[in-house]
Amino acid sequence: MDYFPAPGRNHLFVPGPTNIPEAILQSMNRNNEDHRSPAFPSLSKSVIDDVKQLFGTQTATSFIFPSSGTGAWESALMNTLSPGDKIIAPRMGQFCAIWINLMTRLNFSVDVIECEWGEGVDLAILKQKLQEDREHAVKAVCIVHNETSTGVTNDLAAIRKTLDEARHPALLMVDGVSSVGAVEFRMDEWRVDVALTGSQKALSMPTGLGILCASPKALEANKHAKSTRGYFDWGEYLKSYNSGTYWPYTPSVQMLYGLRASLDLILKVEGLENVIARHRRLADATRAAVRAWGLTVCARKPEWDSAVVTGVVVPPSLDANDVIKIAWKKYNLSLGLGLGKVNGKIFRIGHLGSLNELQLLGALAGVELALMEVGYPVVLGSGVAAAQARLAKQTPLIASRL
Amino acid sequence: MDYFPAPGRNHLFVPGPTNIPEAILQSMNRNNEDHRSPAFPSLSKSVIDDVKQLFGTQTATSFIFPSSGTGAWESALMNTLSPGDKIIAPRMGQFCAIWINLMTRLNFSVDVIECEWGEGVDLAILKQKLQEDREHAVKAVCIVHNETSTGVTNDLAAIRKTLDEARHPALLMVDGVSSVGAVEFRMDEWRVDVALTGSQKALSMPTGLGILCASPKALEANKHAKSTRGYFDWGEYLKSYNSGTYWPYTPSVQMLYGLRASLDLILKVEGLENVIARHRRLADATRAAVRAWGLTVCARKPEWDSAVVTGVVVPPSLDANDVIKIAWKKYNLSLGLGLGKVNGKIFRIGHLGSLNELQLLGALAGVELALMEVGYPVVLGSGVAAAQARLAKQTPLIASRL
Amino acid sequence: MDYFPAPGRNHLFVPGPTNIPEAILQSMNRNNEDHRSPAFPSLSKSVIDDVKQLFGTQTATSFIFPSSGTGAWESALMNTLSPGDKIIAPRMGQFCAIWINLMTRLNFSVDVIECEWGEGVDLAILKQKLQEDREHAVKAVCIVHNETSTGVTNDLAAIRKTLDEARHPALLMVDGVSSVGAVEFRMDEWRVDVALTGSQKALSMPTGLGILCASPKALEANKHAKSTRGYFDWGEYLKSYNSGTYWPYTPSVQMLYGLRASLDLILKVEGLENVIARHRRLADATRAAVRAWGLTVCARKPEWDSAVVTGVVVPPSLDANDVIKIAWKKYNLSLGLGLGKVNGKIFRIGHLGSLNELQLLGALAGVELALMEVGYPVVLGSGVAAAQARLAKQTPLIASRL
Amino acid sequence: MDYFPAPGRNHLFVPGPTNIPEAILQSMNRNNEDHRSPAFPSLSKSVIDDVKQLFGTQTATSFIFPSSGTGAWESALMNTLSPGDKIIAPRMGQFCAIWINLMTRLNFSVDVIECEWGEGVDLAILKQKLQEDREHAVKAVCIVHNETSTGVTNDLAAIRKTLDEARHPALLMVDGVSSVGAVEFRMDEWRVDVALTGSQKALSMPTGLGILCASPKALEANKHAKSTRGYFDWGEYLKSYNSGTYWPYTPSVQMLYGLRASLDLILKVEGLENVIARHRRLADATRAAVRAWGLTVCARKPEWDSAVVTGVVVPPSLDANDVIKIAWKKYNLSLGLGLGKVNGKIFRIGHLGSLNELQLLGALAGVELALMEVGYPVVLGSGVAAAQARLAKQTPLIASRL
Repeated sequence: MDYFPAPGRNHLFVPGPTNIPEAILQSMNRNNEDHRSPAFPSLSKSVIDDVKQLFGTQTATSFIFPSSGTGAWESALMNTLSPGDKIIAPRMGQFCAIWINLMTRLNFSVDVIECEWGEGVDLAILKQKLQEDREHAVKAVCIVHNETSTGVTNDLAAIRKTLDEARHPALLMVDGVSSVGAVEFRMDEWRVDVALTGSQKALSMPTGLGILCASPKALEANKHAKSTRGYFDWGEYLKSYNSGTYWPYTPSVQMLYGLRASLDLILKVEGLENVIARHRRLADATRAAVRAWGLTVCARKPEWDSAVVTGVVVPPSLDANDVIKIAWKKYNLSLGLGLGKVNGKIFRIGHLGSLNELQLLGALAGVELALMEVGYPVVLGSGVAAAQARLAKQTPLIASRL
Repeated sequence: MDYFPAPGRNHLFVPGPTNIPEAILQSMNRNNEDHRSPAFPSLSKSVIDDVKQLFGTQTATSFIFPSSGTGAWESALMNTLSPGDKIIAPRMGQFCAIWINLMTRLNFSVDVIECEWGEGVDLAILKQKLQEDREHAVKAVCIVHNETSTGVTNDLAAIRKTLDEARHPALLMVDGVSSVGAVEFRMDEWRVDVALTGSQKALSMPTGLGILCASPKALEANKHAKSTRGYFDWGEYLKSYNSGTYWPYTPSVQMLYGLRASLDLILKVEGLENVIARHRRLADATRAAVRAWGLTVCARKPEWDSAVVTGVVVPPSLDANDVIKIAWKKYNLSLGLGLGKVNGKIFRIGHLGSLNELQLLGALAGVELALMEVGYPVVLGSGVAAAQARLAKQTPLIASRL
Repeated sequence: MDYFPAPGRNHLFVPGPTNIPEAILQSMNRNNEDHRSPAFPSLSKSVIDDVKQLFGTQTATSFIFPSSGTGAWESALMNTLSPGDKIIAPRMGQFCAIWINLMTRLNFSVDVIECEWGEGVDLAILKQKLQEDREHAVKAVCIVHNETSTGVTNDLAAIRKTLDEARHPALLMVDGVSSVGAVEFRMDEWRVDVALTGSQKALSMPTGLGILCASPKALEANKHAKSTRGYFDWGEYLKSYNSGTYWPYTPSVQMLYGLRASLDLILKVEGLENVIARHRRLADATRAAVRAWGLTVCARKPEWDSAVVTGVVVPPSLDANDVIKIAWKKYNLSLGLGLGKVNGKIFRIGHLGSLNELQLLGALAGVELALMEVGYPVVLGSGVAAAQARLAKQTPLIASRL
Repeated sequence: MDYFPAPGRNHLFVPGPTNIPEAILQSMNRNNEDHRSPAFPSLSKSVIDDVKQLFGTQTATSFIFPSSGTGAWESALMNTLSPGDKIIAPRMGQFCAIWINLMTRLNFSVDVIECEWGEGVDLAILKQKLQEDREHAVKAVCIVHNETSTGVTNDLAAIRKTLDEARHPALLMVDGVSSVGAVEFRMDEWRVDVALTGSQKALSMPTGLGILCASPKALEANKHAKSTRGYFDWGEYLKSYNSGTYWPYTPSVQMLYGLRASLDLILKVEGLENVIARHRRLADATRAAVRAWGLTVCARKPEWDSAVVTGVVVPPSLDANDVIKIAWKKYNLSLGLGLGKVNGKIFRIGHLGSLNELQLLGALAGVELALMEVGYPVVLGSGVAAAQARLAKQTPLIASRL
C-alpha cells in the first residue's frame, strides 16, 4: 500500500526517476536465479553489448555497475585519473556542483568554470583555459551533457571542437545521466572518452544501474591511473567479463531482465531515432506552454534548451515550491523541485523516458491549475493550447498502428 | 509484448474495462492456491460481505459469479422468473437492447418501452403500463441504471416511486453494471430487488466477476421461479455458501484478492462518498468541455446526465469513428465507439473507475487534437480550459495529503 | 498479504487450480485495454485458433467463455440438446455426479451408469444400453475423461469404438477439464462432438476461462437444440466471432494474454508431446511412492490410472482429512480432499500443470511426514526413493539445456 | 521469456541470491515515484530504522547503499580507516579472500590469518597477534561471520572475547552478508563496530541494497579516517539523512518498498526468532542428509556448521561441477559451485532466505538423483529420509495456522 494514496495514477513529471512501462515491470516480476548458471551469460552479454547503441559507440567498452549514477561518476574519475590530477569542469547547476564536490572529495584539483545557472558552458573560456595549459596538466574536461537542475544542454560537438582547436589531449568525460537514450549522443564521433548514465532516466527503469562507456583512450589512461578504487574498478570488472562470468559480484537479476526489456523497447519497438524525436517534440511543446503562461524557461538561450526537462522560472512574488506542493496535494502531479540556489525560484517539468503527448498535456493542465491556486494570473488552457498546436504539427502516427 | 505497442501509457477512456490501480495489480500477482484450504473462506466471506456496501444494502444477499455482467443479467432473470413471465423494460440504448434480447432468448415476454436514445425512461408511460396491468401479470420491471451506450442515467428513486404509486408488486431489477460503486446506489431505500454489476467497471478490475445482490423479496420469488438454471443458480450457490465452502465451483483466487484490494481502495482508502463525488466532478468537467467545443452530449436533459460516461454527438458531416481511430492511432487514446444505431454519430468518453483530474484533462486535450484532425473547427485548449475551470472549483485536496 | 502466511512457497498439489508459471503471471500483470480497439482481434484470434491444438482437432469450432468449467458443461449441453432429451452418463465420482446433477437441473433425462468410485465406465454396459436404444432416443453420451475425484481416466478411443459398434448416432460429449492439455486428446480421431476444459488445470492459469470445442456434428445439432440459453449460447458467440469483434461481452484482457502465454509455453517452449510425457512420468512416480508406502491408489486397475491426479486410499483406521490438515498446517503442502462419498477415505495428490520432478518429490516427502504424524507406520523416504527410481529412468534432459 | 526455460519452478538452492516471496514481488511491482515528495521520507525512515533489528542493535547508525554487498565492504573500510592502516583478517574461504583482496587494493596493510578452507578462525592465533601488537597499530579486525564458500560460521562472541582479553582497541568489522537476518546477530552485545549485509540473502530480495550498521565507536573513527571516499561516504549520507531527505542520490523506490515488505515478513509475520530457528532446522536436516549419503560437509567441526549453506565434499574420483551441471540440466535445480580452490571438490546447498522444509526435501532428492547420475553410489531416498527424521522432530506448526 502506498503511504499517501490517491485515486488514479500519479503524474510523474520529475526528470527521473521516470515512468516505467508495463513491459519492463513484467520482465522484472520474477524470482531470483543463479547468476552463475550457464543461462545467465546470454542475458548479461546481450545487455552489455546493446547498451552501447544508446551512446552511439562501437569502439567503447561498456560497464554496468549496481549503483546510481553517482557511482558511475566515481567510477569514471577514479579509473582514469590519479590523485591531484587537474580537471576542468563547468558549474552550470546543481548536478555539476555535486559532481565537482565529488571530484574534490576524491582528491582531484578542479578548475571550475563558473556559469550562470541557466547557461551552458562558455566555450571561449574553456578554450582559453585549455590553451593556457601548455604543459597539459589538465587531465580531464568533465561536462554534464544535460544539467538536469536547470534544463540546459551543452553542445558536445562544439566542446569536442574546442578541445581539438586547443590541441589539448585531456580526456573528455561526459555525464549523460539525463541525456543518453533520450538525446542524440555520438560518443565515437565526438570522441568522448567516458560517458555514463543511470537506469532511472531515459531507460525508464528503477534506479540501480550505473552504466558507463569508456573509449580506448580512457582504457589506456586506466592503466596509469593511480586513484584508489575497489567496487568501481574497471580492472576487476573486465577480469570477470573476460572470464565469461561477467560480474565481479552478484548482479541484480531483475534489473538485467528489465534492462533487456528497456533496450528492446527503445532499440527495436520504437527505434532510437523515434525516441529522440519524441523527446524533442515533448520538450518543444512544453516550452510553448511556458511562453503561453507568460513565464520564462530557465535556459537562457534556445541553443541550450533541454529535450528532457524544462526549468520554469516563477515571478519573484511567488514561491515555486508552493506550485509543486499544491500540484502534488491536489492533482497528484509530481513536479521537480528547484535545487540548490534556484530553490523556490523555479520548478521543473521532466519530460523524460516513457511518456507520450497526452500524458504531457495532462501535466501541463495540472501546472496551470497549480499556478492559478498560488495566485499567478494564468489563463486556464493557454499553455495546453500552445502545446497542442506544436504537437498537432509534429506528432506522427504510432508506427505499429499505421 | 503488446500487439500494437506505443510509447508511454495508453489513455483508457472507454466506460469499461477501466484502469486498474497498482494496488489491485499487486494483489493479483500471485500463484493459485487451494480454494478448499482452511484459509480461503476468510477471504471469500470478507468480499461477499463487503460488496454489499457498494449497493447500499444491509438486507440483501450477495452473489459473486465467475462471469461477465451478462452472466449476472441471466442469473437475475432466471432465478426470479418463470418461462413466459412478463417483463417491462425500457429500451434506451444498446445495453438495454442486448438485455431485452437476452430476456427474449430466455423465454420471457417483454413489454418494451421504446425510448429515444439519449433519453431516460418515461415515467408516465411506465406508470400507465403498470396501472393497466390490473392482474399483475408483469412480474418484473428491468431497468438499466446507467445506459452506457448513451450516457444516460435513470432516476431509480423516481422509478421506485412510480411502482409504489401504481401499487404494483413487480420485482424491480436493476442493471448497475456501470453505476454501482461509482454512483449513489441505495438498494434498500429504493427497494431494488435485484441489482448487479461487473468487476471491470467501477471496481477497476479485470473482467471476470458478475456481482449481484438479491433482496429478501427476490429470494422469495426464487422459490417459485421455474426457469431452467444451472451455472447461475442461486440455490446451488447458497448451498455452498451455507456449507462454509462458499463456492459451488472453482473461483478465481486472483480475482477475489483483487476484489479485496478494490473494496479496500473504495471503502477504506478513498471512501465511497468521495469516490462518488469524484465521478460527479469528472463528469461535470467533461460536459463543460463538450459544450466548449460547440458539441452536444447525447443525454438530452441534465437530469439524465451520467456520472460515468459522456456520449458526444458529432455534426452530421463527421464520422465519430474517425475521431476514435485517429485518437488511438496517433495519441494512444482509447475512446468508446458509438454502439448500435448511434455508431458513427457519437463517440464516448468514459470517466469511470480509478481516474483523476489530470488523466481526464490529458484525454480531453487528446479529443481536441483528434477533432481537429478530422476537420472539426475546434479551438485547441477550449474544452480543457472549460473543464479546468470546473475542476478548479470542485477538486478537494487529496485526503491523505492534507 | 495472505491470510495464513507461511515462509517459503506453498506446495500446491491439488488437481486444480494448478501452479502458475512466472511467464504467465508476467503476461497478466497489465492494465485493462479497450477490447474493441483494432489491436485486440489479433490476440483474440490467435488464442481461439491455437487452443484447438490441445484438443487434437482441426475440424472443430472453439469457444472461450468467461466462466469456470461448470459453465462450459452447461454450454455443451444447452447448445446441443432439447429439454427432456435422453443422456447416458456414467457416475464414476464426484465430478460425474455434479455434472449429472446439472443435467437433471437443466431438464435432461439422464440414464446413469453407476460405477464403483475408482473404476472407469463399464464398456459392456454402455454398449448394451446403446444397443437397446433402437429408436435412438439417447441424444448424447457424456463422459468425464478424467474423473478428478478418484484419479480414474476413461479410454476414449474404446468408448468411441463402443458407440460405433452399437451404430449409435448419439453425440459424444467429453469433460476434459483435468485432461485436455495434459493427456493425449484426439478429438478428431475419436470423433468427440463436444470437449471442454478450464483455464485453471493443464493450462496452469487462474480460473476464469471455460474452453470448448464443438465438432461439425455438434454445430449441426445446435441448429435444432431447443434448450434455453443466453450467456453460453453458441449462436451469439459465433455472431460476434464472425463479425471480427470476437466477443459478445467484455472478455478478460488479462486472461487472454495469460492464455497466449500458456499456449506458448505448452505448444512452443516445451511442446505438447513433452508436456504429456511429463505428466505421465510424474504420475508413474507418484504411484510408485504410494505402493512403497503400502497404500493403494483409488483407481482399481492400471488401465484407469490418471496422469494428472492420484487418489490415495488410507487404511480404515485413519481419517484422510487429518493427513491433509497436518500437511497444510505444518508443511504448507496443499493436498486434495476426498470429495463426496470418499471424503475421509482418500486424499489426492494432484500432479497437473506446470510442475517438475523435484517439486513432486518434495511433496511426496511431505506426504510421508504427514502420514507419520497421523500414526501411519510409513518408512520415511520410502516413497520418495521409489519415485526417484522411476524418475531417474524416465526424465530427459531439459530441452533448452542440452 | 527466460533464456533456458523449463517446466515448473526453478529450485534455487544457491546461498544467494535467494528465493523472493510473492509478498515482496508484489510490493516491488510498481511505477517509479518522486523520491523528493513529502511521501517518501515515511517509507525511508521506516526501513532505515527497522533494519537495525536484524543486526541486534539499538545503538548503531544504519546505512543503506544502492550497491551489492561488495560496496558495503568498501564503505565499511574506507569510512573508518586511513591509507596504510593495519587490518587483521582471517582467510577462511573465497569471500574472505575477495574481501582481503579489496582491502589490499584500497591500500590497507592486511595481516592475514591463513585458515584451512573448512575451518573457522583460530582464536589462539588471533589472540597472539593482538597481544603482540603492543602499539595498537592494528586498527581493525575484519571477520566474515559466515564464509559462504565453505559453509563455516565463526563464533563472534568468542572473537569479541578474544579482543577483550587482549585488551585491543581495534575496530571489529563483520561481514554478515549471508548471516544477518538468518542467524543470531547481537551487534550491541558483541560490540561489533561495523556489520553489513546485502538484500539478496536473508532478506530474500533482489540484489541491490548494501546495508550497514556502524557503532558509535565506528562513527568516532570515521571522523579521523583519511581514506578517500565518494559514493560510499557516511558523511554525505548522514547529511542527507539529517536533512530529512534521507538519500544523497536517487534511491530505488522499488527496492525500498521491497525492503519494507521483507522486514514485515521477517519481523512481524514470522518473527526473527522463528526465522533463525527455521534456518537452523533446515541446516541440520541438510547435514543429516549429507551424512546419510556417506559424504562429508566442508565445515570440519560442528561448531563451525553454517545455518545458511552446506558445502558438500565429493570423493576425489568425482567432479562436483558435474553434479551441479546435471542437477541444472535435468532437474532444474540450482546448486552452488565450489569457488576458488575448492572448485570441483565441493558443491554447495544454500538453505538461506524464504524457504521451507518441503522445498529443501525436494532439492535433497534432486541432489541424490544428480549424485547417482555422476556415478556416486548413493542410496536413493537415504538423505531425504535422514533429513525428514530431523524435520519431523523439529518443525513446529505454522504459527498462523495453529
